[in-house]
Amino acid sequence: MVNSKRQYRSRIQIAADILEIAKNGSRKTRIMYLGNLSFDLLQKYLDMLVNFGLLEARGGSEKSYVATEKGRHFLEDYRELRRYSEMAQSRRRALEAALANIA
Amino acid sequence: MVNSKRQYRSRIQIAADILEIAKNGSRKTRIMYLGNLSFDLLQKYLDMLVNFGLLEARGGSEKSYVATEKGRHFLEDYRELRRYSEMAQSRRRALEAALANIA
Repeated sequence: MVNSKRQYRSRIQIAADILEIAKNGSRKTRIMYLGNLSFDLLQKYLDMLVNFGLLEARGGSEKSYVATEKGRHFLEDYRELRRYSEMAQSRRRALEAALANIA
Repeated sequence: MVNSKRQYRSRIQIAADILEIAKNGSRKTRIMYLGNLSFDLLQKYLDMLVNFGLLEARGGSEKSYVATEKGRHFLEDYRELRRYSEMAQSRRRALEAALANIA
């Protein structure tokens, strides 16, 4: 959502990034690496996503995670949010151009 | 766009409001009244919209204005912007609800 050069991800965006990586299951280290998250932040989000039923922990030698049905639905809503935001943004640019100063 | 209780209209929004009022032609006083604009602000916007080819001045005892083809196109883009923004907003709310603290 933030369009500055330095992008700060929103809570929704970080959650969606994690769910996207883990949609077919992923080990924790892979989520940390691909998600570009510190260990602490990753842990906080994993706990939250598991708590809210968006992510499921799987046993094994190293802990892995997979998006639940609810998590996949979250991802779909997120993709729609992105799509509608981009469509709104393209209209906004057209409107701004129509009101731009022709110097 | 602004969702605070006290709404400050954006430049785009004020332009769209004026064009909506004047889409089939409107006298200046009517635009001022329905557009909820001060005389100075109205004059500034009317000049700008005429300059940018979105609005056309008509002669007569009292000056009236009518949206041009370009002005009608601006209005269409604006309605789409609103629609896509609302759709994005509804997805954002769903995503926030999924990440809400269940206390």
